This record gives sequence, structure tokens and C-alpha cells, in this order.
Amino acid sequence: MPVLVMKFGGTSVATLDRIRRAAKRVGVEVAKGYDVIVIVSAMSGKTNELVGWVNETSPMYDAREYDAVVSSGENVTAGLMALTLQEMDVPARSWQGWQVPVQTTSAHSAARIEDIPPANIMNKFAEGMKVAVVAGFQGVSPEGRITTLGRGGSDTTAVAFAAAFEAERCDIYTDVDGVYTTDPRVESKARKLDKISFEEMLELASLGAKVLQTRSVELAMRYKVKLRVLSSFEEQSDEAGTLVCDEEEIMESNVVAGVAFSREEAKMTLVSVADRPGIAALIFSALSDAGVNVDMIVQNISEEGRTDMTWSCPVDQVKRAEQAMAEAKSSGIINYSELLADQDVAKVSVVGIGMRSHTGVAAKMFQVLSNEGINIQVITTSEIKISVLINRKYMELAVQALHDAFELDKAA
Amino acid sequence: MPVLVMKFGGTSVATLDRIRRAAKRVGVEVAKGYDVIVIVSAMSGKTNELVGWVNETSPMYDAREYDAVVSSGENVTAGLMALTLQEMDVPARSWQGWQVPVQTTSAHSAARIEDIPPANIMNKFAEGMKVAVVAGFQGVSPEGRITTLGRGGSDTTAVAFAAAFEAERCDIYTDVDGVYTTDPRVESKARKLDKISFEEMLELASLGAKVLQTRSVELAMRYKVKLRVLSSFEEQSDEAGTLVCDEEEIMESNVVAGVAFSREEAKMTLVSVADRPGIAALIFSALSDAGVNVDMIVQNISEEGRTDMTWSCPVDQVKRAEQAMAEAKSSGIINYSELLADQDVAKVSVVGIGMRSHTGVAAKMFQVLSNEGINIQVITTSEIKISVLINRKYMELAVQALHDAFELDKAA
Repeated sequence: MPVLVMKFGGTSVATLDRIRRAAKRVGVEVAKGYDVIVIVSAMSGKTNELVGWVNETSPMYDAREYDAVVSSGENVTAGLMALTLQEMDVPARSWQGWQVPVQTTSAHSAARIEDIPPANIMNKFAEGMKVAVVAGFQGVSPEGRITTLGRGGSDTTAVAFAAAFEAERCDIYTDVDGVYTTDPRVESKARKLDKISFEEMLELASLGAKVLQTRSVELAMRYKVKLRVLSSFEEQSDEAGTLVCDEEEIMESNVVAGVAFSREEAKMTLVSVADRPGIAALIFSALSDAGVNVDMIVQNISEEGRTDMTWSCPVDQVKRAEQAMAEAKSSGIINYSELLADQDVAKVSVVGIGMRSHTGVAAKMFQVLSNEGINIQVITTSEIKISVLINRKYMELAVQALHDAFELDKAA
Repeated sequence: MPVLVMKFGGTSVATLDRIRRAAKRVGVEVAKGYDVIVIVSAMSGKTNELVGWVNETSPMYDAREYDAVVSSGENVTAGLMALTLQEMDVPARSWQGWQVPVQTTSAHSAARIEDIPPANIMNKFAEGMKVAVVAGFQGVSPEGRITTLGRGGSDTTAVAFAAAFEAERCDIYTDVDGVYTTDPRVESKARKLDKISFEEMLELASLGAKVLQTRSVELAMRYKVKLRVLSSFEEQSDEAGTLVCDEEEIMESNVVAGVAFSREEAKMTLVSVADRPGIAALIFSALSDAGVNVDMIVQNISEEGRTDMTWSCPVDQVKRAEQAMAEAKSSGIINYSELLADQDVAKVSVVGIGMRSHTGVAAKMFQVLSNEGINIQVITTSEIKISVLINRKYMELAVQALHDAFELDKAA
């Protein structure tokens, strides 16, 4: 029998009614002849409650105990889903991570899946079981302790199972009905994409389109797992949602696939640092050690042996960055006159694998923003992405203008 | 190091504050030099919530999935307790049933503990861990599935660990401060017992004194585990609570240790059944098959080859008993004229190992009830117990009169 992986997120299993609705979708795929592996998250709100208890109990918690506590939400959903399927006369049973076993590293709270031996579940499929309901987000370490994969880890669990079981497809059921050219709340003409390449999805995921966890897309790309994102709240056909797949499978596509944005950015500038070899390494390793996720970096032209260094980072890490720079200064590691922080910026990006073979995307993007009178503060580019930092008040305008200029409301 | 087992019930770990209070008690025992095994229940209310979800999902649920779901509450408490102890600088870690492993039968929802290999936990004690926090009520079947021991099973977990680790004592922390001569809500002069024998506790437990689960007392008696019942809500000394122990350890005791009672009784009489060999077996196996827990049984004197059969059972099983008898009649297994059900009775018992060597307890009991004008409907006796069924409205009066007559407010 071909194997299908179906993953249901927290909002899709938030109540017993929603679990029933999800189980019906599973029943449809079983009726088509699939052996189905269902990956479930905790009922929405449950994991936050457990995390809250852990934080209140022990602010500097032992991550092994954190994992033992917070993994319990998924176990509850897995059992309830198996019972719901049994009520529909679908042979099903639940599996906790250690039962499969989902073998992970010992990096508690952020463990990586090392292996998923398929034998135990495949034996049950051979005996007539049709659905294995697996608690997502969790695994077991070589020491036999429960691990978790980090927030959003259930997407990664789903993709890892799809790879291990050579599944035909991995369907991610969520509260949106697919991947859009941009956020429909910002641009009403945003269009749902039928297909998107792994590379594009990866850029969109890491740029803040919260549909899929970045790590799950990386894993899907590496193992060529066909990922489909679709809504658990609508009746679904085989062509519903958005298929995330290899670019070879996408016949026609726009040069630009989508416009992404992120509001929560800050721009920081270290004024008048010595322009000598190794200075950038000192600055950015100090920031990295302090847990600051630096995104864009610009170094100004040097004047009289001194330069300014500018970077962007999430706005809630500004304090941490200021502290790290102050410490580096007082301990004599770096010297600078002042550190400026502009917390009033946003990042807007255009993403598309078509940019590899089409020149002029950057020029067109800059022209569009210029026509709207929007000043570009920082620019970074990759092979399939161009990002700019702009004043936050122009963010919506920029997204709408770019969506329009690249004709993203029209299919290729 | 000597090992001590400490068990905390649901009300004792209902909030993070209460978990902290319980952890402080554990810290006191660690400071005395014990290696401590802590058995925890789910935070009160949690198990009921999970059971409710299972019942709503699947009224005829798969007990294996039931166990996978309802066992999760204890896992949460175990992790939080371990974190709380760590915050107090007490080296601790949590263990789920399968990690120990607590090996049980495959009788899901009512599994029996088969073995608890002490090696894993003892190795950690040898490495310097001071407290093993174990999720109560759960284990793992030979098939590697999660099992539960039935409601109140955490008491049984605690006693089984005390036996397996040859613990010096098993302390059961609960919301009462010990075992009383009777329920203080019915008789204000009720006195807390310092010690009680296993046999007496067993009679009191099965008679409805809800301090300890019957099965845990049986297990403690078999393995000679010293059990202590005490309150988690009061400051405790070494002599606090009630010690449940072998009768040889009790130097002096009253002839009668306590007065127990049960309100939820019904008396049923099958009128005019054929008085022939095997008829009782037919009646009571039909009731047993229907899940009716018959307690007292009386067979009247035979007249003209027919007799009346009277029994008592929990009041909520009357309907089930009526159905079982009607079916047995319609299928020709037994014949009777009518089935009477008196749902207005209560059972009152006096319990004491001193009754073995003292005659006259029964006579005194009947005299006391007679003095109060209370009619006795059914009597049963065992070596250390006399029970009577009376009209429910006299129950409090009977308990108070017996408590007074046997001078239970005074220590031996």
C-alpha cells in the first residue's frame, strides 16, 4: 500500500469536534487505499499552558524535564485521534515518540531527528492497521529520555516520517488554505499558489510567512518529500492547497513567486569603528554570543581609517545587542563612538526562482519603490531573493506596489 | 543510603504552590540522609478532564488508548516536581512508567504490577541523584504499550516501589492527617489513630474509608511495607499521621479500632425462589456477570420448598441487578415471584483485631443499637469485623452510639 503522511496542527485539533473533522479527512484517504501516518500537535493552548508552568516553576529549567512535561500535550491528542478513528471503524492506534521509536539527538528542547526505523509501524500496517497516529514534536534520546524538537516541530516530525516511510506525499493541514503570493491581510489581491518550489518556500518561511516551519522545508527539500499545505476547515479535493515541490515539477511560474515582509525589524548602526581586518568578526561574534540573530549587514565606506557598521535584527533583540556592544567596548575588544538603533523599520522581499534566469528584477523593484517615494535603507540579495529595509510606515504600500508591478495576482 | 518512598495525591500537587510545599517535605527527608522515591498523581481535576474527553470521543473506548491519554497527567506533575526539587538544589529527575520500567500485565485500565527492576534508579542514586520522581498510576505492558492501574492506582505504585526498593517506609501524603476511629464529620469525638494493623486498615479501606486504596493495603501487607498516612497540608514530625503496620508492632490497642459506615447501600430481596442445591450459585453468578458487587448475603429459612434470598449491593447497581434477574427469569434459569429493592439502608461496621481474642463484641454492638431503638436488618461477620445493615436515617446515631460505647475517643 502507498503511504500518506497527514499532519494536523494545534488549531486543527483544538476541540473534540475538530478532531472528528480531521479524522474524517483521514478516513477519505484510507478509503482511497492509503496506509496513513497521522502526525498530531497538542490541542491549541495546551503547550503554552505547560510551558508556562515550567517557566513559573524553574526559570532556568532543566531542558530534559521541560521536554518530559511539554511533550504530554501531543500524547493526549494522539490517543483521542486514534479513538475517534476507531469509532469510525478505521483500524488505528496511537504511538508516542519513544514507541516508534523517533530517535533524536540529546539536544533537549531543540533535538534533531537522527532516525525513524519504520519496522514497528510497517508490521502493524501489514497486520491490517490502516492509520498510525503519532504524537508530533517529540522523540527519544540515546539515553532513553524524552526529547522535543522545538516549537513548530510537528511539521518536522511529519516530513521526517514521510522521508522514512517513502510516503507519496506529506499533507500539512493548518488554518490557512495554502501559500499566498503575499499576506492577504496586507494585499487583498494576494493569490493562492498551486505550486511553489522548496527554495522559494524556504525563503518565504524564513522571511516570516508562518505557514511552515523552516526546518521542515529544508528536510523536505533534502529528501524530495512532496509537501502540501491545505486547510483543515474546508472540504478538500486532491488539488486543494499549495504543493511545495521540486522546481522541475513546476512547468510555468512567474519570475517572482511572492512578496514577503517582516514588521519586527530594527536597524542598528555602530558609528566610527576602526576599519581594520577582523573588526567585523569581532562585532558579529559578540552579537552571536549574545543570541542576537543578525540578518542584513552593511559596511559603509571608510574615512580616515574609521567606518560605520550597520545591521538589522529582530526588534526584541535590540537591548541584548546594546548590552553586548557596551560590554565589548568596556573590555576593550572594540571601540566606537555611538550605537544607533532605529526600531522603526520593516523588511520587504521579493522571492522567485525565476530571478536566476531573469535579469532586471532588482532594478524593477527599486524603481517601483522609488515611484512611491519610498527610501531604501539597506539592501541584501540572494540568488532567488531581494530584500530591502524601509521605514515601517511604508511597508503596506511597498508590498501592494510590488505585488501589482510583478503582476502576482495573475497566474503564470 | 536507606530508601524512603513518598507519595503525593492529586490535591497535594493541585497547584505549583502545593508542588513546592510537597517538594519542601521531600527536601526534609533528603536532609536526613534518605534516597527518596517520590510518587506523584496528576494535578487534581486533570485525570477527570482526560477521562471525560475519552468518554465523549468513544463511549466503548479501546482501553489501550484510554491508558495512553489518561496517563499523561502524572507525567506533567512528575516533570514539574523534579524541576521544583532542582530549584531547591536537590538532585532530582522524573521517570515515566516505561522508563523505570514499571512492568505490568496487559490488562489495560486495570493492570497489575508484575515487576519493578530497581537497577536504573539505583544506578542514578549511586551517581548522586537524591530523588527519583516517578509518575504514579502507570506502567508498560509486555507489548510496550502504556498501561494504567485503575483509579487510585498511585497508592499501589507507591507500595510496589517501597517493596521493590526495600524502602524503610512508604509515606502517603494526602488531604487528611491520618486514619481516624470514624469519620470526624459524623462523630466529632473521632480520634486519630497513631497505629493501625494492615488487617484493620484493609477492612476500613474496603468499607469506604477513602484514605487508602484497598489494593495498596493488600500489597503492603503481603510485602510488610510500613505505610504511613499523613497530611501534606501541615507541618510534620516523625510521629505524624497514622502508621499502618504489622499487628506485632502495635503494643496496645483497643478491642475495636474503628467504626466504619457506608451510605450508598441497597438491600435487595428475591422472593420465593426454589430452595434447591445450586440455586444460590445461579443467582450470584448472574449478578456477578452483570457487574453487581454483592456484599452481604442472607438466605431465609425455607418454607414449602421455597425461600427468600437477600443481598446488599451499592445503590447505583440496583438497576443492573434488576435487569440481570429479569433476564435470568425470562430465560428460565431461575424462578421467583418478585424482586424487592430497599434503597434506604446503610451499613455500619465495627473493626478490630482485638475481636479475635475478645468475645462479646457482637453482643455489645447489638445491645447498643437496640438501646437506641435501631432495628438490624442483615448481619455479617468476619474474624475482625461485624457489619449490620440498618435504616439509613439511623446511620449517624448508630455510629455515634458505637463510638461512645467502645470508648474509641480514648487511647488504649
